[in-house]
Amino acid sequence: MNQDLLMRLLQHVASGEVSAEDAARRLQHLSCEDIGYAHIDHHRSLRKGFPEVIFGEGKSAEQIVGIMERMSVQENVILATRVDPLKAQAALSRFPDAQFHAEARMIVWEKNPVPVQGRGAILVLAAGTSDIPVAMEAVITAQAMGNRVDKVIDVGVAGIHRLFRHRELIESATVLIVVAGMEGALPSVVAGMVSRPVIAVPTSVGYGVSLGGLTALFAMLNSCSSNVAVVNIDNGFGAAYVAAMINRL
Amino acid sequence: MNQDLLMRLLQHVASGEVSAEDAARRLQHLSCEDIGYAHIDHHRSLRKGFPEVIFGEGKSAEQIVGIMERMSVQENVILATRVDPLKAQAALSRFPDAQFHAEARMIVWEKNPVPVQGRGAILVLAAGTSDIPVAMEAVITAQAMGNRVDKVIDVGVAGIHRLFRHRELIESATVLIVVAGMEGALPSVVAGMVSRPVIAVPTSVGYGVSLGGLTALFAMLNSCSSNVAVVNIDNGFGAAYVAAMINRL
Amino acid sequence: MNQDLLMRLLQHVASGEVSAEDAARRLQHLSCEDIGYAHIDHHRSLRKGFPEVIFGEGKSAEQIVGIMERMSVQENVILATRVDPLKAQAALSRFPDAQFHAEARMIVWEKNPVPVQGRGAILVLAAGTSDIPVAMEAVITAQAMGNRVDKVIDVGVAGIHRLFRHRELIESATVLIVVAGMEGALPSVVAGMVSRPVIAVPTSVGYGVSLGGLTALFAMLNSCSSNVAVVNIDNGFGAAYVAAMINRL
Amino acid sequence: MNQDLLMRLLQHVASGEVSAEDAARRLQHLSCEDIGYAHIDHHRSLRKGFPEVIFGEGKSAEQIVGIMERMSVQENVILATRVDPLKAQAALSRFPDAQFHAEARMIVWEKNPVPVQGRGAILVLAAGTSDIPVAMEAVITAQAMGNRVDKVIDVGVAGIHRLFRHRELIESATVLIVVAGMEGALPSVVAGMVSRPVIAVPTSVGYGVSLGGLTALFAMLNSCSSNVAVVNIDNGFGAAYVAAMINRL
Amino acid sequence: MNQDLLMRLLQHVASGEVSAEDAARRLQHLSCEDIGYAHIDHHRSLRKGFPEVIFGEGKSAEQIVGIMERMSVQENVILATRVDPLKAQAALSRFPDAQFHAEARMIVWEKNPVPVQGRGAILVLAAGTSDIPVAMEAVITAQAMGNRVDKVIDVGVAGIHRLFRHRELIESATVLIVVAGMEGALPSVVAGMVSRPVIAVPTSVGYGVSLGGLTALFAMLNSCSSNVAVVNIDNGFGAAYVAAMINRL
Amino acid sequence: MNQDLLMRLLQHVASGEVSAEDAARRLQHLSCEDIGYAHIDHHRSLRKGFPEVIFGEGKSAEQIVGIMERMSVQENVILATRVDPLKAQAALSRFPDAQFHAEARMIVWEKNPVPVQGRGAILVLAAGTSDIPVAMEAVITAQAMGNRVDKVIDVGVAGIHRLFRHRELIESATVLIVVAGMEGALPSVVAGMVSRPVIAVPTSVGYGVSLGGLTALFAMLNSCSSNVAVVNIDNGFGAAYVAAMINRL
Amino acid sequence: MNQDLLMRLLQHVASGEVSAEDAARRLQHLSCEDIGYAHIDHHRSLRKGFPEVIFGEGKSAEQIVGIMERMSVQENVILATRVDPLKAQAALSRFPDAQFHAEARMIVWEKNPVPVQGRGAILVLAAGTSDIPVAMEAVITAQAMGNRVDKVIDVGVAGIHRLFRHRELIESATVLIVVAGMEGALPSVVAGMVSRPVIAVPTSVGYGVSLGGLTALFAMLNSCSSNVAVVNIDNGFGAAYVAAMINRL
Amino acid sequence: MNQDLLMRLLQHVASGEVSAEDAARRLQHLSCEDIGYAHIDHHRSLRKGFPEVIFGEGKSAEQIVGIMERMSVQENVILATRVDPLKAQAALSRFPDAQFHAEARMIVWEKNPVPVQGRGAILVLAAGTSDIPVAMEAVITAQAMGNRVDKVIDVGVAGIHRLFRHRELIESATVLIVVAGMEGALPSVVAGMVSRPVIAVPTSVGYGVSLGGLTALFAMLNSCSSNVAVVNIDNGFGAAYVAAMINRL
Repeated sequence: MNQDLLMRLLQHVASGEVSAEDAARRLQHLSCEDIGYAHIDHHRSLRKGFPEVIFGEGKSAEQIVGIMERMSVQENVILATRVDPLKAQAALSRFPDAQFHAEARMIVWEKNPVPVQGRGAILVLAAGTSDIPVAMEAVITAQAMGNRVDKVIDVGVAGIHRLFRHRELIESATVLIVVAGMEGALPSVVAGMVSRPVIAVPTSVGYGVSLGGLTALFAMLNSCSSNVAVVNIDNGFGAAYVAAMINRL
Repeated sequence: MNQDLLMRLLQHVASGEVSAEDAARRLQHLSCEDIGYAHIDHHRSLRKGFPEVIFGEGKSAEQIVGIMERMSVQENVILATRVDPLKAQAALSRFPDAQFHAEARMIVWEKNPVPVQGRGAILVLAAGTSDIPVAMEAVITAQAMGNRVDKVIDVGVAGIHRLFRHRELIESATVLIVVAGMEGALPSVVAGMVSRPVIAVPTSVGYGVSLGGLTALFAMLNSCSSNVAVVNIDNGFGAAYVAAMINRL
Repeated sequence: MNQDLLMRLLQHVASGEVSAEDAARRLQHLSCEDIGYAHIDHHRSLRKGFPEVIFGEGKSAEQIVGIMERMSVQENVILATRVDPLKAQAALSRFPDAQFHAEARMIVWEKNPVPVQGRGAILVLAAGTSDIPVAMEAVITAQAMGNRVDKVIDVGVAGIHRLFRHRELIESATVLIVVAGMEGALPSVVAGMVSRPVIAVPTSVGYGVSLGGLTALFAMLNSCSSNVAVVNIDNGFGAAYVAAMINRL
Repeated sequence: MNQDLLMRLLQHVASGEVSAEDAARRLQHLSCEDIGYAHIDHHRSLRKGFPEVIFGEGKSAEQIVGIMERMSVQENVILATRVDPLKAQAALSRFPDAQFHAEARMIVWEKNPVPVQGRGAILVLAAGTSDIPVAMEAVITAQAMGNRVDKVIDVGVAGIHRLFRHRELIESATVLIVVAGMEGALPSVVAGMVSRPVIAVPTSVGYGVSLGGLTALFAMLNSCSSNVAVVNIDNGFGAAYVAAMINRL
Repeated sequence: MNQDLLMRLLQHVASGEVSAEDAARRLQHLSCEDIGYAHIDHHRSLRKGFPEVIFGEGKSAEQIVGIMERMSVQENVILATRVDPLKAQAALSRFPDAQFHAEARMIVWEKNPVPVQGRGAILVLAAGTSDIPVAMEAVITAQAMGNRVDKVIDVGVAGIHRLFRHRELIESATVLIVVAGMEGALPSVVAGMVSRPVIAVPTSVGYGVSLGGLTALFAMLNSCSSNVAVVNIDNGFGAAYVAAMINRL
Repeated sequence: MNQDLLMRLLQHVASGEVSAEDAARRLQHLSCEDIGYAHIDHHRSLRKGFPEVIFGEGKSAEQIVGIMERMSVQENVILATRVDPLKAQAALSRFPDAQFHAEARMIVWEKNPVPVQGRGAILVLAAGTSDIPVAMEAVITAQAMGNRVDKVIDVGVAGIHRLFRHRELIESATVLIVVAGMEGALPSVVAGMVSRPVIAVPTSVGYGVSLGGLTALFAMLNSCSSNVAVVNIDNGFGAAYVAAMINRL
Repeated sequence: MNQDLLMRLLQHVASGEVSAEDAARRLQHLSCEDIGYAHIDHHRSLRKGFPEVIFGEGKSAEQIVGIMERMSVQENVILATRVDPLKAQAALSRFPDAQFHAEARMIVWEKNPVPVQGRGAILVLAAGTSDIPVAMEAVITAQAMGNRVDKVIDVGVAGIHRLFRHRELIESATVLIVVAGMEGALPSVVAGMVSRPVIAVPTSVGYGVSLGGLTALFAMLNSCSSNVAVVNIDNGFGAAYVAAMINRL
Repeated sequence: MNQDLLMRLLQHVASGEVSAEDAARRLQHLSCEDIGYAHIDHHRSLRKGFPEVIFGEGKSAEQIVGIMERMSVQENVILATRVDPLKAQAALSRFPDAQFHAEARMIVWEKNPVPVQGRGAILVLAAGTSDIPVAMEAVITAQAMGNRVDKVIDVGVAGIHRLFRHRELIESATVLIVVAGMEGALPSVVAGMVSRPVIAVPTSVGYGVSLGGLTALFAMLNSCSSNVAVVNIDNGFGAAYVAAMINRL
């Protein structure tokens, strides 16, 4: 339930359209609903300004559909991340208005279009072509949270002139999300070019001592640029979530 | 050289107080000065809005003093982190107006008081008494960067009612910096209470499998709250730097 | 062979129903039987109060069935953990009274219902929906060992009010088993609410620096709550075993 | 403030010896007191049955003394762990009735003797002479929490007959704390001999791939005996705390 | 080529049955033969007393067959380890006299039976049923190298009486190979019972912090019994090889 | 676009065969072309003397084909590494002149034969048969970059005479690439025999504590021979690239 | 108590020189004596052929002296390892006949000279000058256990001709102990030259990714020579102990 | 003994100035001399073109002086690395012509000035002021090996314009040594600017997840620029040694 729905409900009580008893019963559900395998946090979009997001990994198709169902009662936007194509199919056959973004492995269900809000644009930069899935998770999340989003792909530090071609876009962004695997150097260079917060996302792209993304993660945490904060490996969603919070301040 | 100094210089040129030649020579120095053991980045405060900060570890007292000297020509505020007391003594005997914060191991030299700017207040929360040095590094940095800063110490999750006593302060902050060692659980709980960006700082407080802060770091990166971004272990400075960038948007 | 069976045997000897020779031969088997690929420990349920449990991983279906067969001579309850569905099928077609719990990957074969014993109830709490398989391993084990068991699922620390809704259940439990992956913070918070022993079970739920559960494990071992002891990653069985021993004191 | 003190206070209010106002003021302090560098949790001994313990590492002598001072208003027993001799001296010169146990690096201050409670005895076993400091931390903590405690030292698995000499003591204990470094095998063997909960404490004793205790820790978590739960490396205190909770059920 | 074949060749030269030229050509091949993808070391069984063994992992069926072919010219026994069933099939269809031991994943091809040599018996002990594959690799290798071999399975330290039932066998062995996964404690206990060299083999049996056998390996390297030396995880072959060398001294 | 193509274009402009406008448009493309999922760096072969190489892992067949298409406009040689057979098939059906080296998992497309250049020969040595895929990646890359390449396979340090048979080849090489898994000792021994730069390539061949090649990598970085530099695990391509740069000096 | 002392005691009983009662009391002490901080294992030299050795690290000078005192009643040779000079001084002032080997940090106290026994010679090889302390721990231990010992220092694989100068000594040894830090390659090369068991000892010599000896350890466990078994980092004592057991077979 | 000395000796034999016997005796010493704690490799400068270098860590002052003494008989240049000031003092008081470079912890003893050789210049770049000691080890080694060396300090990627100021020097170097700690990103950026071999040196500069230089090392091994090879952490000497070999081709 978001601020709008709450407001409307209370106005209906005021106008007599809804009885106090009905509203009470309805608001009680606002809080936390226990459906056995999950607690649906119905006043999260009130508290957080955005509904809880379903982390799809390790959940069955049934559980994902079940949680979407309960959330759909109160929410306008429902997001599920790390959903494999088979589970997505199950969900979409139940909720045909939802969309599945295969590359990003995300389900997005916007009942009504989400209006663009926020202070400015979020820019998502990715070092290589192989980082695209993580970058797209960030792009889609940020858009679903009501942000204007730009993206630039394959501008790793080995050919730094590729990056400099996009200097204008870089300098005009409000928050930057920088996605990189391998040596994870891109956030340091980008952060050195701006005076904006940079959210760095290490990816598991690489082999050998890329260590599944640990090397990129550690490199980013050791950035010699100070305006960098970091999220977990391949966590494009989390980066966009933080960036959206910042862009909304 | 910050925006003010640049403005004043150009006005003096306009008014004839400074000749174009003098200004040119002076502005040339604005860029990057090579002093052998360091490159002083004089237009950083123009570019970044805050001068380069001296990372004291691994630098000799002579090098710290030397860099401070060059920076002082153009900057209003000079910060040095991770300075041990002996090196601090050497620096203060040369720059008596500077201050040494022993707990945080920082030198702060404000030639003129830094005015409070920014959207709102930055709140620094620390899980335990032993986390104070890192928390203070964050507090002092954020203040020196012109922010209003509040702090609450020793509110770890083992006695969660201690945290809830400060709910109001928590909910009113614009950005939160949460400092914790051991299991590093505090950022998750705090981030669950707000819809603001939370910068988590793991500390090396603990023993055994605290692994010098790695456990807290990894826990924070795995936070089940999505509005959390993380900086390096014990990096109170970096957390404050990012928070200040956010608060200034 | 449990205490009951032993008692009955000895009474039969006393009453003449069983000859001393027969009893001797039978009791000899009580000790350890070598079947080539395994040593069946027949007096374990005498010594430990509960029969040896078959760890299914790395054992063939034939070996599992073979061990169950030998154990069934003397035991009332037989448990096998980490059994995949195919091996389970083989076992159930041989022992049709046994039950397979797919989610928990366990076979339970109770020849006679196990009576509820113990000082009070064991409460199993799980942080997320994805932690259910491990939580269920704990629930089923504890029940098979004769304990009253309650469970609460999906009460992670990111929305701490969900946890507080169950405060009564939490405060009334004799022993608590707390299951969590990702940052593993739940045991610290729960342990801070009670003065009972808490057995923490890290799970391999998560990605990136969850490191297959190592992060949750290390976080739990570093708990700032002192009434926490920990078992191996995903070891719901072990947690229930220890909890049952405590509940029976 | 323990149950006794609370009872007495309320009785005084009932009898008129203490005014309602005074009691209120006093009880308010029961909750959590913020002294800047720490939050003193005054109703912990009510909630937990034992006061908060001061973790000495990373705290200054002043901070330790300050916290002891505040706690002493309400508590009968005060414990501080990981206190080095110099800080201990400072504390003892301020509180001459307190005792410092150098080997265990603990301060114990019992205002009145703690009566022995609990279901039975706690047995502390240590694998080697070098494990004594950690074993003694467990022994002293368990005693200060009102338990009968036995101990046996230097019974590592390389000469298993040494262990078997103490079979009787082992079999009669209610809870066992088993302390071992190096390969950490002792808990598995001991747990195989009893049907009681075993709390295993890995120590940092060893060299090379003992990895500062990680090897012993991991070995204990992988125990093929199921009645073993584990605490952090060198955490004798934590083991005793859990054991005391169990013994008090 | 072993000592026998060499002797016979030289006797044939002496007796005129083989010309010097033929012998020379033949002996040249004794040394190292380069077949493009491998160097066949033909005088290894002269130098080492046992032919090179084919490590099957990462080699194609063609490469395994090719190397066997070349070795078969000069050797009486050919061993290949870590051969999966498909590759084994290819090899056996080419060399029908060879045998495939599926559990141990080994091909053994003895052209003539290998006579039992050596000072005494090698005893292979395995902690659990799941350790059988590694134990069998050791048993088969040691037998193929001409040793008398005994084996005892499933005598882990959790029920130490199972181990003691085999005390006689243990005390009479010349060299002991002790195979264990999980906490890897068995070698310490066994080594404490004898004054013979113990070769410890960690296995990858376990889960969570067994870390694929690292925990067992590290535990064994930290054994508090001094007569223990260790080989790589799951390296039953290597253990048998060293044991055979010792038994032949 | 390589130096030759550039030269020819400019000569055509000079001779009037190409108008200045056309040349400008064409040269603009020389720089960096953004095709959405990748930035094609067209003046790399000018800048680096060799075109960018396509890292196939994590790229779809479509992306690989797309990038090859754009690169083919300007380049004479196109290389793609870590291409699995299915993706290779897709590429070859589009570019029938290209070749797929299955063992090395590489696509090589030479429009015109690459002439042999460079100071001398590059020698590729591999410790074992299982290291062949990585060694072949190095051989093919070095050849495609215009070098004379020799190779010797299966000369690990366990039978050092095998290595010494190739002493002449070893001593005559200009640069040596030494490929080894397991203990990674070969580069140390080889480097001790020559006064030439040795590029060491660790491979993931091995098991247990080979740790996926980390052990070989670390061993090589710790080489007691000083003329050794190292590349990432299994990075035959990178080793050849550096070696080619050296051979071309 | 060794075999000799036991024999003599029993002869004295037979001859009446010692009463049965006295012998009984004396033999009782043969077993395990509990002195509070240690269990002295008096029949170890009977069981193991060599008395328990005192591991000095983590023991106080008082504890070392105390254990030596008790052991001296029954043993001819007493060894203490990892004794720092200060503790050694305390021990030697109490037992003036004992010797301290500073380089190896060992105390050796032979009441009567130990006769040379064993099948042949033990050869200790060390890769570098910095490995001498560990090599000497092996040399001294092996000598104190009654072995003939040779040693060769500084024959690392970077200049392999240095090693080959000692080929004769290498080929004639019964057991070889090979000590190396850094990349730990020496055991593989040496083991390739002989058909004898090789005990490899990694040392903590090196820096960076020598990881305190882990790299050498892992390399040795991955040796492509099969006649290698390994002991813990810097464990010269353990290597000699195993070698002595082998040499005595 | 270098090529010159050998030539001169042989010419003296030719001219009769030195007898064949004397030359033989002298040349014999050329090979390897065993001085107990070390093998001096006298024909290394013949074989390698540069004498063996003394690794000072873990060697006593006496050992360093002793080895220098033996080497000085045959060599013109003697280098010792990782020498602490106290040991250096001992060496310089014995060899007053030698020089100690405190920052780089190196002793350099050139009997006659080393002439500059090599194809071109070696450029040493260091990311930060704290990397100077490692960079200087590289500079001094390369100079002592007869190379022209340039250096640029403090040009980390956070302010990339500082690096670009030195573009000319960078593009004109024959080999580049790039020294960086923290995130280790500098080699990737530099290597992207040139078509020359880049030797990357990670340093232990940093804290937290810099992991003592492991992060920088891993980042460099994962460089998205292909012309990068890497040496051990803080190994400025090794980088210079490889670079010198390359520059001399």
